Amino acid sequence: TFPKIVVNNTNNGFKQPPPLHARLLCELIGTCLFIFFGAGCAAKPHDLLTVSAAHALVTVWLVYVFGPVSGGHFNAGATIAFAVNGKMKIIEIIGYLVAQGIGSILAGALLLCLYGTGTSLGTPGLQPGVTVMRGFAIEFICTVILSFVIFFTTSYNTYKEAAFPIGLVVFSSFLLGADRDGAALNPWRWFGPAVVSNTFQSTAWIYVIGPIGGFLFGYILFRLYKLLWNGRASFQI
Amino acid sequence: TFPKIVVNNTNNGFKQPPPLHARLLCELIGTCLFIFFGAGCAAKPHDLLTVSAAHALVTVWLVYVFGPVSGGHFNAGATIAFAVNGKMKIIEIIGYLVAQGIGSILAGALLLCLYGTGTSLGTPGLQPGVTVMRGFAIEFICTVILSFVIFFTTSYNTYKEAAFPIGLVVFSSFLLGADRDGAALNPWRWFGPAVVSNTFQSTAWIYVIGPIGGFLFGYILFRLYKLLWNGRASFQI
Amino acid sequence: TFPKIVVNNTNNGFKQPPPLHARLLCELIGTCLFIFFGAGCAAKPHDLLTVSAAHALVTVWLVYVFGPVSGGHFNAGATIAFAVNGKMKIIEIIGYLVAQGIGSILAGALLLCLYGTGTSLGTPGLQPGVTVMRGFAIEFICTVILSFVIFFTTSYNTYKEAAFPIGLVVFSSFLLGADRDGAALNPWRWFGPAVVSNTFQSTAWIYVIGPIGGFLFGYILFRLYKLLWNGRASFQI
Amino acid sequence: TFPKIVVNNTNNGFKQPPPLHARLLCELIGTCLFIFFGAGCAAKPHDLLTVSAAHALVTVWLVYVFGPVSGGHFNAGATIAFAVNGKMKIIEIIGYLVAQGIGSILAGALLLCLYGTGTSLGTPGLQPGVTVMRGFAIEFICTVILSFVIFFTTSYNTYKEAAFPIGLVVFSSFLLGADRDGAALNPWRWFGPAVVSNTFQSTAWIYVIGPIGGFLFGYILFRLYKLLWNGRASFQI
Repeated sequence: TFPKIVVNNTNNGFKQPPPLHARLLCELIGTCLFIFFGAGCAAKPHDLLTVSAAHALVTVWLVYVFGPVSGGHFNAGATIAFAVNGKMKIIEIIGYLVAQGIGSILAGALLLCLYGTGTSLGTPGLQPGVTVMRGFAIEFICTVILSFVIFFTTSYNTYKEAAFPIGLVVFSSFLLGADRDGAALNPWRWFGPAVVSNTFQSTAWIYVIGPIGGFLFGYILFRLYKLLWNGRASFQI
Repeated sequence: TFPKIVVNNTNNGFKQPPPLHARLLCELIGTCLFIFFGAGCAAKPHDLLTVSAAHALVTVWLVYVFGPVSGGHFNAGATIAFAVNGKMKIIEIIGYLVAQGIGSILAGALLLCLYGTGTSLGTPGLQPGVTVMRGFAIEFICTVILSFVIFFTTSYNTYKEAAFPIGLVVFSSFLLGADRDGAALNPWRWFGPAVVSNTFQSTAWIYVIGPIGGFLFGYILFRLYKLLWNGRASFQI
Repeated sequence: TFPKIVVNNTNNGFKQPPPLHARLLCELIGTCLFIFFGAGCAAKPHDLLTVSAAHALVTVWLVYVFGPVSGGHFNAGATIAFAVNGKMKIIEIIGYLVAQGIGSILAGALLLCLYGTGTSLGTPGLQPGVTVMRGFAIEFICTVILSFVIFFTTSYNTYKEAAFPIGLVVFSSFLLGADRDGAALNPWRWFGPAVVSNTFQSTAWIYVIGPIGGFLFGYILFRLYKLLWNGRASFQI
Repeated sequence: TFPKIVVNNTNNGFKQPPPLHARLLCELIGTCLFIFFGAGCAAKPHDLLTVSAAHALVTVWLVYVFGPVSGGHFNAGATIAFAVNGKMKIIEIIGYLVAQGIGSILAGALLLCLYGTGTSLGTPGLQPGVTVMRGFAIEFICTVILSFVIFFTTSYNTYKEAAFPIGLVVFSSFLLGADRDGAALNPWRWFGPAVVSNTFQSTAWIYVIGPIGGFLFGYILFRLYKLLWNGRASFQI
């Protein structure tokens, strides 16, 4: 007989499955920390590898630590895609988005304490010579890939296993885009620093529409892929 | 009695083993993404560590995610070596190569959208002071090592385990060669960017002959090594 | 029936559980090596990514190797937080702090041998334009996060699994702070190099109060979090 | 009942335990590749992080791939320490050292093909302002730590698990020493490039005596440590 390995820590050792308030707290803290460490590096003079590492490394440990509790969205695009998948209740969807938004503003406030006024606090922006369409393409294509990898890995792995490849996709995406359009891949990554530093470019819509559209398109691709394969479209995440 | 570990996710959670069209889709997407993120970094001003990381990190998560489906070739050299090993059908061999080629062109097209005309889109090329023979030596030697490690690790590990050492060999190889001959290690890594950007150097044959020859030589070495050891030359991958 | 995974190496293969003298030795060596490799890089001309990697990588392998023996504190803040948790005896607490202090001075002495007089041996210090309060905020906030992640991961993982996310939090924290306040996150990281190189800034209290306060606050947060969830406040680490 | 996890691949899937000629081949190839990729990066203009990564990454995948076959020494210091431990036969000791030496020369020859005459092929050397004693201290201290970690991790882990922390110690050591004394940590790392490029400094003895002395001292420390703990001095590696 071949006993299966029982992954024993799916709820991170707590007695009950995580209640909603604990999950919302994790989403708030996680979104805050992603922006705090990511934008906190982008707000300083930086090179491409350093700022990409900053965003990727924080993603790995956030998914590793908080993934088993809240699912580790930290991203409006991810929450909306999971909402469309139909497994989240309305109250959960709203709660996740509100918690993430508060976390985003909180990160901006922390960065304001550290860096003071007079900087954009790492708000992403198009670099000279990068058109709006090219910036949008970076946001959209990278989040399509990111969402596909998130669905693929979290469907069949524990969060601890998935943390590493997900963080590496973030790394690859920032290496491609961080010196071109600032690379948000996440509406909240733009939102908090932009609101707190009062930095608004007319092209900033790409950091909202790009990632949300990318996650939805990646979700559709993953459903088509499963349909193509298994002959059933719905899937459990 | 010592029960064996049952690797539960060899088919990534899908009900059936992957059908050919799913595997070809993975090869197409994987080859495209390797070139998209790798050449996408090489097309910008870059330093050696950054461009090497770009190629290595995308390799890790591609093998992690798509390895269990298609085997994670993404490389004409790998497919030809597996073909010579005799476990692939003719239709599979042709399908893999065609899918990879389409992925390569698609990556070139995506990069053209992002960077426009007037760049070589990261097409590898010999740097000043590097002779053709030295460039060929880098391509050949590094792919001999890469193929040996691929055969070694994927024979006795899951793709999730093998993804990390394979990506590290790619990292080491690019640290050696990326600032000398551009380092393709893969005919498709040269093909797509070269075709789309219309960049053709007379020395570009090294990016085709080098990796294919290297993979075949590495395959022969691995068979000899197994023969030396176990007294049988064929092996299951 | 689902057999649980038996973690076989919790005491790293030794026959008995680690006696106190072995644990103190590990704390002494571990604290020494963290400072030796971290400050040893900071004492040279360095860029942000390199010095952050130096501190993070040594953390990973120290926790991996010595974590199963002594718990891998290497930090007065960690030991004080674990002391407040009430599972350590008075003799253990004093022993841990003394061993860490000796390790810290020893690291300073080793660095003096390597670099000679005339440098600050990597003693952290506020950079121009960074106020005391901002430096304190970096130390405090980063150690709150670090301690929370340490409690979270070591509670429900082996040290070998926890080593990686803990090291990544250190990486993220140094990417945020190393070029701003020097980033100690650990009183001993400041103590040894400062004493041996006789470098005392009037603002150096932030490297002592910040991390100790941060670890205590992080500990309180983790207890509140568990109370909120499970209805019991004490926890086993 | 709690079934233990059976690590099934200790001999990397081959039917018999590795015969001596296979192990010697792995030592030859592994030593060659460590120097090929490490010195191959050091021979070019490089920064500290890049050259440290080059040596560390190749170590990880070499130990991962060849560790289960030959033990993954690739270092005269390691072989001599294991010889003193008394578990290796005379023929094995001589075979390992000869194979490593051939691999070292082979790596030098390959580098000569790639870089031509007129460079030192990455032969380590003291940098201006670094005294012989400081260079020796770097070699000695770092290999004491490296050997202790090798004994510690390989005693109680599979090579696949040990590859990562061992590679990280190499990373930390090169971040400390690569821009000071060139950092060999391994007599063969100096030997091959020095012989082939005919680069001999009068201070080069530190790259031979330092690592061998460091490995022997680390071995003594580990035996004392085990004696202190378990009351028996001999150990199985």
